[in-house]
Amino acid sequence: MPRTLTRQLIDEHLVSGDPVPGREIGLRIDQTLTQDATGTLVMQELEALGLDRARTEVSVQYVDHNLLQADERNAEDHEFLRTAARRFGLWFSKPGNGVSHPTHMQRFGRPGTTMVGSDSHTCAAGSLGMLAIGVGGLEVAFAIAGEPLRIRMPQVWGVRLTGELPPWVSAKDVILEMLRRHGVSGGVNRVIEYHGPGLAGLSAMDRHVIANMGAELGATTSVFPADERVEEFLRAEGRAGDHRPLAADEGAEYDVTAEIDLSTLEPLIAKPSAPDNVVPVREVAGEPVGQVVIGSSANPGLRDFAVAAQMVRGRQTNDAVSFDVNPSSREIFSDLTRMGATFDLIAAGARIHQAGCMGCIGMGQAPATGHNSLRTFPRNFKGRSGTPEDAVWLCSPETAAAAALTGVVTDPRDLAEKLGLDDPVPELPAEASVNTDMLVAPPPVEEAEQQELVRGPNISGLPDFPPLPDTLDLPVLLRMGDNVSTDEISPAGAKALPYRSNIPQLAEFTFTRIDADYPERARGTGPHAVVAGDNYGQGSSREHAAITPRHLGLAVVVARSYARIHWQNLANFGILALEFTDPADLDRISDGTVLHLRDLHGLPDTEEITATDDDGAEFRLRHSLSPGQVEAVLAGGRIPLLARSGG
Amino acid sequence: MPRTLTRQLIDEHLVSGDPVPGREIGLRIDQTLTQDATGTLVMQELEALGLDRARTEVSVQYVDHNLLQADERNAEDHEFLRTAARRFGLWFSKPGNGVSHPTHMQRFGRPGTTMVGSDSHTCAAGSLGMLAIGVGGLEVAFAIAGEPLRIRMPQVWGVRLTGELPPWVSAKDVILEMLRRHGVSGGVNRVIEYHGPGLAGLSAMDRHVIANMGAELGATTSVFPADERVEEFLRAEGRAGDHRPLAADEGAEYDVTAEIDLSTLEPLIAKPSAPDNVVPVREVAGEPVGQVVIGSSANPGLRDFAVAAQMVRGRQTNDAVSFDVNPSSREIFSDLTRMGATFDLIAAGARIHQAGCMGCIGMGQAPATGHNSLRTFPRNFKGRSGTPEDAVWLCSPETAAAAALTGVVTDPRDLAEKLGLDDPVPELPAEASVNTDMLVAPPPVEEAEQQELVRGPNISGLPDFPPLPDTLDLPVLLRMGDNVSTDEISPAGAKALPYRSNIPQLAEFTFTRIDADYPERARGTGPHAVVAGDNYGQGSSREHAAITPRHLGLAVVVARSYARIHWQNLANFGILALEFTDPADLDRISDGTVLHLRDLHGLPDTEEITATDDDGAEFRLRHSLSPGQVEAVLAGGRIPLLARSGG
Repeated sequence: MPRTLTRQLIDEHLVSGDPVPGREIGLRIDQTLTQDATGTLVMQELEALGLDRARTEVSVQYVDHNLLQADERNAEDHEFLRTAARRFGLWFSKPGNGVSHPTHMQRFGRPGTTMVGSDSHTCAAGSLGMLAIGVGGLEVAFAIAGEPLRIRMPQVWGVRLTGELPPWVSAKDVILEMLRRHGVSGGVNRVIEYHGPGLAGLSAMDRHVIANMGAELGATTSVFPADERVEEFLRAEGRAGDHRPLAADEGAEYDVTAEIDLSTLEPLIAKPSAPDNVVPVREVAGEPVGQVVIGSSANPGLRDFAVAAQMVRGRQTNDAVSFDVNPSSREIFSDLTRMGATFDLIAAGARIHQAGCMGCIGMGQAPATGHNSLRTFPRNFKGRSGTPEDAVWLCSPETAAAAALTGVVTDPRDLAEKLGLDDPVPELPAEASVNTDMLVAPPPVEEAEQQELVRGPNISGLPDFPPLPDTLDLPVLLRMGDNVSTDEISPAGAKALPYRSNIPQLAEFTFTRIDADYPERARGTGPHAVVAGDNYGQGSSREHAAITPRHLGLAVVVARSYARIHWQNLANFGILALEFTDPADLDRISDGTVLHLRDLHGLPDTEEITATDDDGAEFRLRHSLSPGQVEAVLAGGRIPLLARSGG
Repeated sequence: MPRTLTRQLIDEHLVSGDPVPGREIGLRIDQTLTQDATGTLVMQELEALGLDRARTEVSVQYVDHNLLQADERNAEDHEFLRTAARRFGLWFSKPGNGVSHPTHMQRFGRPGTTMVGSDSHTCAAGSLGMLAIGVGGLEVAFAIAGEPLRIRMPQVWGVRLTGELPPWVSAKDVILEMLRRHGVSGGVNRVIEYHGPGLAGLSAMDRHVIANMGAELGATTSVFPADERVEEFLRAEGRAGDHRPLAADEGAEYDVTAEIDLSTLEPLIAKPSAPDNVVPVREVAGEPVGQVVIGSSANPGLRDFAVAAQMVRGRQTNDAVSFDVNPSSREIFSDLTRMGATFDLIAAGARIHQAGCMGCIGMGQAPATGHNSLRTFPRNFKGRSGTPEDAVWLCSPETAAAAALTGVVTDPRDLAEKLGLDDPVPELPAEASVNTDMLVAPPPVEEAEQQELVRGPNISGLPDFPPLPDTLDLPVLLRMGDNVSTDEISPAGAKALPYRSNIPQLAEFTFTRIDADYPERARGTGPHAVVAGDNYGQGSSREHAAITPRHLGLAVVVARSYARIHWQNLANFGILALEFTDPADLDRISDGTVLHLRDLHGLPDTEEITATDDDGAEFRLRHSLSPGQVEAVLAGGRIPLLARSGG
């Protein structure tokens, strides 16, 4: 039977289970990716697991999130990660070498392999015909230790692309169109597999843009075939030998299907403050703009920067606009500089920042309150920029550069007509400025075993969590709506992120974007619950969003539905994630409701559980946990489970 | 009688007084410079003064300090400054355009003019034959309003330079040698005037390096002649017409003299944590280094970056070193990029940061605790980097680049011998990449008068201070030693600086580096005093170091001696600065001492005052305030004085 490419990749790595949508499968993992914001916990988890040496083909520890170094903590984390990578046999990508996703694609991505990464945009590697899945840090730690990844088999969503993008429309508009059509939970429990004749016009980096923001659709991952465009990319990176042609079999059938005629697309923009709040740029043209930022893993390619540089060349950005440029990797920054584009950007008034995630994760470039900021980023959740009352818009580099010049939201086609601009097709070097000197290879085992972990004063150990009691009486401390993001559960940003290795400190920020008093109330209450609507825990993969509320006493979450990675993180750290059997029951819970749960130790035998409140009213709840996850929750989390089982 | 150049500049601008060392003189001010960290207060002061339009030849508001934008406050300050500059008729240098001092030198500096700036390194403009003095913000506000600057006539210290710098020794080593010989208070109440045949070998930017760090000697300012090297600089900037040859008259006599034979110098380095803790690099060679930073107003020249780039070209920085590069201005960054040096730096592993002060003011690039950081910066006061227990060393770009390559403190001559390097003499473009588009000119008056000041939620007004009572009974809340810096009084850094426009918030950081409980104790006490040793208030010009303790109730400081700018700021904001007649009396003050001061309204008639403690023991004190300063202190500060006089 003809197979989708997704199915081929799964079959090739299947170690257990039956790949039927909804069933649990186990997959062999070839590569892992960790970044610094999540990686310090992963390294502490490797310690807790007693790992001697990574068992994957390639594991890389990147430093790309916390680069500002407003005090000593970030630099200390970098040193901890450098020494931990040496100790456990990981590659180490130094601060300044770039954002993990484009860098990994350039140096390590290989068609036909599997990867997990403790970053929700790990899926970007699907651009090279990889099956790459963003997961919680603990999953990555287990993968580094050679354990298979256990997930529920997703549906495969075939998206057929036809036609060719018109001038001034680029890859970002394709994924914005997907978000416009399907919304932030349109991809849940699905792998998006792109196919069709439209692919010929999309370079590997264009596909990265599209695969990367599959995370915003809630998809398990996105997959592209490995074709000539992938080969061309690998050749430019000096790695032609890593190419392997891959595609869905002729006649393969998808669980779900969709089609986009690229030639019908126009410049799109996501308005504040959700990635699926998408409208045509012309619909909002003329809105004043205070800041424009080019960069991030959502538009990381040399082309994306070169297009912006070409548009502003010989011109000057508007007086009232701060034009910020974040090169995404050292290699791309080198090439931009070699091409003269860096000079053009500086001359036009750009503020050039070090290569890294920076503003995308709220580390710098925060806009003024209420001033519109146009960004080529993947996310615009409220406050993620570092400014609580921000107004962040997501768009292509073409749309961003147009606004930098005019000071208002501008369809680049209208600017082009006004200024007589040609469609920007920058000439890119056939060979990239490959330079691997900032990627430090793991030392030989004998040397690695001698490496001490250098632990700064701000790096705590992992907290110890007790097993789940049989009986719980839980005041509900928060009632939340739909699409609560991990940014709202455990904020990133310059204030909180430096504490990412210090759980007690970081816990003081938990849920504070929703309720400033939550940490204090939680500490005063002890074990408690929170309730929420659909798609709870969307966004970043950070497992801090499970660990910090757990540290403050969160025992049970009840939601209408969950975002995949966060749901997995809850189980990993011993928080019981339940769903309402009747979604309308969410509205029956009020301030002061106390949920009484009984017979929790019977969870292995049932998916249903009934809670009562003080008045004896009943709430029918259920869970979707696998037997392994139930065992972990009962034990207080996967690490206590491992410890109890004698390692 | 033949005159020094300093005396010529003073005579040409004298509006009152007799230029005899120690006497108060009034000087006409041609130019002013403000930066964002101090400028938001200056703009609020211009409002308080009711100014309609700047009355200087040139006044420029730079944005170079607070560029990180970890939250909305910095961006809001930038917008406040942009609109205030338009309102009051100042030039506005956008964020990303560069550090004030080199940028001002490139675009506005003009031999024979006077300038005041609310930044202690304003003195750097002495490199062009200007008399440029760092003062408190209020002095700048009065200068913008057309008022003369009143200062005590300093001594003129003639420093004769002979010989030529040997290979691998550069301008930074000259000023480090001055600091090694004379210490951080060696220049107090002096203008350092450089002269002699050694000048021929020093470019205008080399002189900037030396003049800039005259601030670290405590000097009123530094002055260089305007000669062929200055003309050459102005020509490269497209401003040959602004040149005017200036030099001391033949046979002019200096109040104090010194001589340096440049050919005898070797690479020097200031060890943690004082700029005068200077030793030859070879004496500390081999110390491990975790970070190297190139940049700041202390080594801002194209040459300084180009030398570092040339040394690292084709090489790779040490695995354990973070190599940070802060271009000092957009123009220099453009030229570096045009020359290929930016590419060389990136390829060697540099993290390139946006043009600005950044790490020099503790905004980013903070090192790990205890890890040595080598910087081409002017200051290494403990904690200024943002890391409380830092270990910052000051050196030339040559010494810094050598350490970036080796990972240990290295005399560049020894590296050169090992690697067979030639003396780095980079070829600089004859014409700079002049581009003034990020310098926004003031609009015409009619337009300016329509401009509203855009005030973000974090921009407070100036607090209101009451007049000095006739009688004070003051508990002494802090006893401090010598060389207390304004960084210790009102810390900069990423945590405190965003509050620079919000005095009540910023006050919570006052003296906390010395005593974490000071703000709470001060609020609980009310009016109080602090005592200190010599050179109290050294370092930055920020007037927050007077305003925030005043806000918390500080009424009187008693010290053995003061740094000039801070002493002036104290008077401006109504804090009485007294000196011990007998320096040994400092040791007679203990925890719990209460100082009783009487007849303070008689201050205009006496320079002496006697305090008693609870036991009746006497302390003989005195002040050095001018009549105008006494009047200001009695009124509660210069702004209340103006308000009371109806002006």
